[in-house]
Amino acid sequence: MHSVDYLMNKIQDAFPEGEFLGVPIELYEPIEYTLSQGGKRLRPLLVLLSCDMFGGNPDVAMNPAIGVEIFHNFTLLHDDIMDQAPLRRGAQTVYKKWDSNVAILSGDTMFVMAYEYVCRVTPAKLPSVLATFNDTARKVCEGQQYDMNFETQQQVNLDDYFMMIQLKTAVLIACCVKVGAIMAGASAQDAENIYKFGENLGMAFQLQDDLLDAFGDTSKFGKEIGGDIVTNKKTFLYLKAFELANGETLEELTHLFHQQQIDPNHKILRIKEIYQSLGIDIITQEIIEDYHKKAIDYLNLISVEEASKRGLRKLANEMIHREV
Amino acid sequence: MHSVDYLMNKIQDAFPEGEFLGVPIELYEPIEYTLSQGGKRLRPLLVLLSCDMFGGNPDVAMNPAIGVEIFHNFTLLHDDIMDQAPLRRGAQTVYKKWDSNVAILSGDTMFVMAYEYVCRVTPAKLPSVLATFNDTARKVCEGQQYDMNFETQQQVNLDDYFMMIQLKTAVLIACCVKVGAIMAGASAQDAENIYKFGENLGMAFQLQDDLLDAFGDTSKFGKEIGGDIVTNKKTFLYLKAFELANGETLEELTHLFHQQQIDPNHKILRIKEIYQSLGIDIITQEIIEDYHKKAIDYLNLISVEEASKRGLRKLANEMIHREV
Repeated sequence: MHSVDYLMNKIQDAFPEGEFLGVPIELYEPIEYTLSQGGKRLRPLLVLLSCDMFGGNPDVAMNPAIGVEIFHNFTLLHDDIMDQAPLRRGAQTVYKKWDSNVAILSGDTMFVMAYEYVCRVTPAKLPSVLATFNDTARKVCEGQQYDMNFETQQQVNLDDYFMMIQLKTAVLIACCVKVGAIMAGASAQDAENIYKFGENLGMAFQLQDDLLDAFGDTSKFGKEIGGDIVTNKKTFLYLKAFELANGETLEELTHLFHQQQIDPNHKILRIKEIYQSLGIDIITQEIIEDYHKKAIDYLNLISVEEASKRGLRKLANEMIHREV
Repeated sequence: MHSVDYLMNKIQDAFPEGEFLGVPIELYEPIEYTLSQGGKRLRPLLVLLSCDMFGGNPDVAMNPAIGVEIFHNFTLLHDDIMDQAPLRRGAQTVYKKWDSNVAILSGDTMFVMAYEYVCRVTPAKLPSVLATFNDTARKVCEGQQYDMNFETQQQVNLDDYFMMIQLKTAVLIACCVKVGAIMAGASAQDAENIYKFGENLGMAFQLQDDLLDAFGDTSKFGKEIGGDIVTNKKTFLYLKAFELANGETLEELTHLFHQQQIDPNHKILRIKEIYQSLGIDIITQEIIEDYHKKAIDYLNLISVEEASKRGLRKLANEMIHREV
């Protein structure tokens, strides 16, 4: 077994400066820019931790681990165009720093690169790794489409919201740990259980993201608090609040979210107060804990000794109790 | 051996109406729209013809054949956003009919679908099919970047132009025939020769496209003649004309291509006259024939009996003597 820190160092080493440069430079510079920004590198870490837990040499899972990280960053590049997002990880998005054509084509190229890395596995593992990755990539696209649909939909029910975040976020987390399992030669049953672990963890992770956007600590969260509130994003908090609110509270909520000329700081402050008065922060936290518990239940089913599970257990805990 | 018509019918059957619909409908409708428009289906036909020539059952190559066709259409979808092209195959482009966000995300989904089909081959063939496809996909992106770079470059030399069309167009034609060879179990030497055949054929095909845009017959070409001239596109004809022109001709050419307020019909007419006076149409035709000859030389090297080569020989001939 290897420590989380040891595996994270390995991942950092796999993204050295200049690694993704090439010609034409106009194509590869935005790719290098994106991939050198870092981010949490959670997804490749999950691949390696899962492989390690199942007794595989994490080195054999390094290529698909890099592949999923490139894929994740590709989706961010294209999402940022669609959302017209100016900032990502405290820096200008590719779409903003260059233009949308650059972001489209560099993104497409990253998608190819993701496949190149994912394909660098032994031929025996290739079919199942690719089946998992293809299925995931398709679902992530579908999730992004639902997310865009929600923007213009008057009503979004919570079931649809959960389906959307499952597709857009959770299946990729699930894919990561399953690919790690495949690379380690885990049984089909164990691979299925670790997938379910990842899926539930991914749901908790996304809900934590929704919660932090409103109730995180600005100094730790690394981005402005309330971004989702200002842009009227239909997060779990938003949808749950509209479900629970009535009377004057519902009226005020509607007013705050639909009024065009409103001071953003006032809007954030007041909506957070309403969320708290409705207990939305507590409810969200409870659902996060529920998904976390479900994830851990699946981890407990896995047929490796308890000590081997320590790394994934620790990371899962950090992912949903994070402040950033 | 099967006839070209027989194989083309098989391909048409692989794209039945409604085949690519799914949920969310907002994502899949533009995909179905694109893939049901047809087009020449040249690329999947090349896959099947090559497989057939090498004695393989074309059915085993059908999935990757569909995959390359979906990939090709994905690149068109994204290219049309970047080029702000309103029309494709006589119909509105996805970017224009819906919007660029739809075209980005539906395109990404088509890219995943392309991989799904390409991956549906026997495990033994999977690594080499994917290696060929990944390499091609990467090069097509690089080619598109060079093509975009050329738009804002003052000078583009012909070597760079040939490199661009090799990456953007020729390698995909080469990939098609190589994948057919791999699926039929052709030798490495034969697979390499058919790749070179495809590459040279692809060069001839693109140059023919450049030529038809200026000198095609409107009633047969299916799109307006002179589109490249009106948009100042740096085609082979454009670049060669600037290389050969001097004195007053160079001055007029420069004037015609740089003057903003100019009647498009006059511009097309006059530039075609200059092209003809410089012998550009003849020179282009000669280079097309050169590439065609090189392609056929590689086809001749292939170790199957002459009768088996008839289909590819016929299609190659049609591709570069086409009027549409």
